[in-house]
Amino acid sequence: MSVQKPSIPQGTRDFGPAVVARRNYIFGVIRRVFEKFGYAPLETPTMENLSVLTGKYGEEGDQLLFKVLNSGDFLTKKNAAVTAEDLEAGSRKVLPKIAEKGLRYDLTVPFARYVVMNRGTLTFPFKRYQIQPVWRADRPQRGRYREFYQCDADVVGTDSLLCEAEIVLMMSEVLNTLGLTEHTIKINHRRVLGTFYQALGGEGTEVDLFTAIDKLDKIGQDGVTRELLERGFSEASVARLFELLSVQGSFAEKLQQLQSAFAAAQVPTEADGSYKGLQELGQVQQLLQDFGFTHFDHLEFDPTLARGLSYYTGCIFEIKINNVNMGSVSGGGRYDNLTGAFGLPGVSGVGFSFGVDRLYDCLEELNLFPEAVATTTRCLLASFDLENSRQLLPILRQLREAGVAAELYPDEAKLGKQFKYADAKGIPYVLLQGPEEQAAGQFKLKELSTGQEQLLGWNAVLDALTK
Amino acid sequence: MSVQKPSIPQGTRDFGPAVVARRNYIFGVIRRVFEKFGYAPLETPTMENLSVLTGKYGEEGDQLLFKVLNSGDFLTKKNAAVTAEDLEAGSRKVLPKIAEKGLRYDLTVPFARYVVMNRGTLTFPFKRYQIQPVWRADRPQRGRYREFYQCDADVVGTDSLLCEAEIVLMMSEVLNTLGLTEHTIKINHRRVLGTFYQALGGEGTEVDLFTAIDKLDKIGQDGVTRELLERGFSEASVARLFELLSVQGSFAEKLQQLQSAFAAAQVPTEADGSYKGLQELGQVQQLLQDFGFTHFDHLEFDPTLARGLSYYTGCIFEIKINNVNMGSVSGGGRYDNLTGAFGLPGVSGVGFSFGVDRLYDCLEELNLFPEAVATTTRCLLASFDLENSRQLLPILRQLREAGVAAELYPDEAKLGKQFKYADAKGIPYVLLQGPEEQAAGQFKLKELSTGQEQLLGWNAVLDALTK
Repeated sequence: MSVQKPSIPQGTRDFGPAVVARRNYIFGVIRRVFEKFGYAPLETPTMENLSVLTGKYGEEGDQLLFKVLNSGDFLTKKNAAVTAEDLEAGSRKVLPKIAEKGLRYDLTVPFARYVVMNRGTLTFPFKRYQIQPVWRADRPQRGRYREFYQCDADVVGTDSLLCEAEIVLMMSEVLNTLGLTEHTIKINHRRVLGTFYQALGGEGTEVDLFTAIDKLDKIGQDGVTRELLERGFSEASVARLFELLSVQGSFAEKLQQLQSAFAAAQVPTEADGSYKGLQELGQVQQLLQDFGFTHFDHLEFDPTLARGLSYYTGCIFEIKINNVNMGSVSGGGRYDNLTGAFGLPGVSGVGFSFGVDRLYDCLEELNLFPEAVATTTRCLLASFDLENSRQLLPILRQLREAGVAAELYPDEAKLGKQFKYADAKGIPYVLLQGPEEQAAGQFKLKELSTGQEQLLGWNAVLDALTK
Repeated sequence: MSVQKPSIPQGTRDFGPAVVARRNYIFGVIRRVFEKFGYAPLETPTMENLSVLTGKYGEEGDQLLFKVLNSGDFLTKKNAAVTAEDLEAGSRKVLPKIAEKGLRYDLTVPFARYVVMNRGTLTFPFKRYQIQPVWRADRPQRGRYREFYQCDADVVGTDSLLCEAEIVLMMSEVLNTLGLTEHTIKINHRRVLGTFYQALGGEGTEVDLFTAIDKLDKIGQDGVTRELLERGFSEASVARLFELLSVQGSFAEKLQQLQSAFAAAQVPTEADGSYKGLQELGQVQQLLQDFGFTHFDHLEFDPTLARGLSYYTGCIFEIKINNVNMGSVSGGGRYDNLTGAFGLPGVSGVGFSFGVDRLYDCLEELNLFPEAVATTTRCLLASFDLENSRQLLPILRQLREAGVAAELYPDEAKLGKQFKYADAKGIPYVLLQGPEEQAAGQFKLKELSTGQEQLLGWNAVLDALTK
């Protein structure tokens, strides 16, 4: 076995103790909010059959799936031996013969697969959350990884707008609990976008319109204009679009203005004279009011929000942190046909997802991680020699029995080295008991951050370490 | 996109809400004990480079690694295009050209890789724990999965036997906290096995002897005898071996008997007249006594314990649950050269691992899961109609503000259906407030397990749900 310099794959990361502790803090906040709202945990396997994954994320997504090689003699499986002609035809021809499994690409498709496989035993509406890593063979770059965690909450089997309102509540509670108070929860409705298309009079295609609007953040009004003109929209239509998109005022005022504008453009309404997208947004707002939601200043109806070309059919959501320069930290929406690809049509659901890496970066930039999160060991017992170590063992046991994370430096070493160890590990307290202190029935407790040293009896030590 | 009946890969599992909650309970107990002993969390990537994994688990292990196909056009990578000759030569020849990464096979090799990559910045002794899944392309069978979690704790950079003693303490605390009080923690020392070999007078090989002893549990004394005779050991030697293995009595008595037996067989001692394996076991026992360890009746010196042919060089551990018919739920030991393969020789460490699936099965068989673990939502608000739902929203908010996991049935439905939902989800309480109760400023709280219904004021409701 030759000696090698080890490395980890591009785009993947080791998380050392301090980072895991901080990530677990974020996961814990999210998990507690999800559970308080009645969402229950689900975990699905890392590997899914490629037949489940392929075709669900578009052509580009299929390329970005990590595929797992069949085990054993993968070239010569019965019914699927790789031939010289296959090799000639290239990777696409060979792939299905040598790989049947892939790594989870998101948490939504495995969730849909789970719902369909267990539809006979699940209780609907089914509310689940899922906090697991996903993998994408994307080109790694700053802030983009090939392995990263998603935190999803979805409810399927109901089209009640209460679910949308509760998503806003959950988003708000997670952000405020983390201290990310400077945020904007943006909300829109897929059918508002559809009504824009109708209001423009039928030029171009809906897909072209949504794709262009989705880029507004990145390429600005000029870029979107250019793109729409290229795609066959008239200058008058584009001008009309930006007039519609520029509605101002409160949530309710914007809804009202668009209602009037759509009516003026003679876009057909529902039987009751309303536009369904606007109407549902109004209902969500009303439910939040009934709830006693107090953060309306952080909720914005943003008619330019498009959330890509994904499967959403109703309300869509996105969160921006206002005082950090970063993309959205969360997004989601309602979909009417999540499980259709697996043979179970007509199951409506709504859900959203937090990106943990971005939340982490925001908390770090704003210095919002609580200090207590950083370390696990609270007290190091330092010893003068092996005999002293032996005497400290019952002390160590009693500290742990009191719930204090504690350790004894395991080797015979100078006190300076032991203090350095505590300092490097971020252990806040060092406890000593030399012959003098022992004779007096006391301990020396040193707080490393202040340098303060105290001579204390056992009960006072326990008090200091458990408070 | 054609409709398909979805499935998951062989040997993998979905974990629904009830199972996740129970697994998280086990993980939580283990994590808290690890942290109380000063072990800090580490997480490594799911994929490792095959150069890191290959050759670390023996020939068979290499076969059981899941390999990840290179992304993109994997057949024609520069410097590694697959040729017709490669195809002819077979899978082994093609593999290194199309796969550079594999899935984590255990937590030990990634830990060693991490230590070597970060040796400049880590503080030694480095105590880490790691709770993550691993993957093995084993033939799936009852109780053996292709994806399963391991919970490891290791300390490297010290050869202090305090670490061995603390492993016994951690094992004992985890098992007792889980309620698995009927257990045996078996301990042995690799050098005791080595001394057996010397005592037999140099027939056969050490590897053959250890391999045979390791099977004693499975094939019994007759099987081991047959195997050793086949491998060139004499009948006298085998008889002598079983005489040595059959020592009886307390921990200390067994140590004493073997010391005498080895001396009688004229096996060379250390300079101080001791046998190092026996001596270290004695020291571990002494440290546990100093600690005030009270469960010596569960600790057994088992000279037949061999723990396979792995990399252990010092003490070895294994846990059996006595009242469940199942293999060991935990094992570990000391190794002197964990990081040698990565160019960092001489780093001594000791660690152990819990198998969560087996612990889970034991708790289930013995009915030891606490009831409170089973559900997350504590109270369902049932509503009579949409108007009633709206009135219940502030109640829902206040319950959650008080930390009560609560949900409102989102659709208009008959009460019977809502109660059925609560029952199926294992929600213990249903809260109602019809017009009558509202007029009286009261609520109806029903406990589903007993059927008991109470008319209560708001404070009494909060009391009942938060107690």
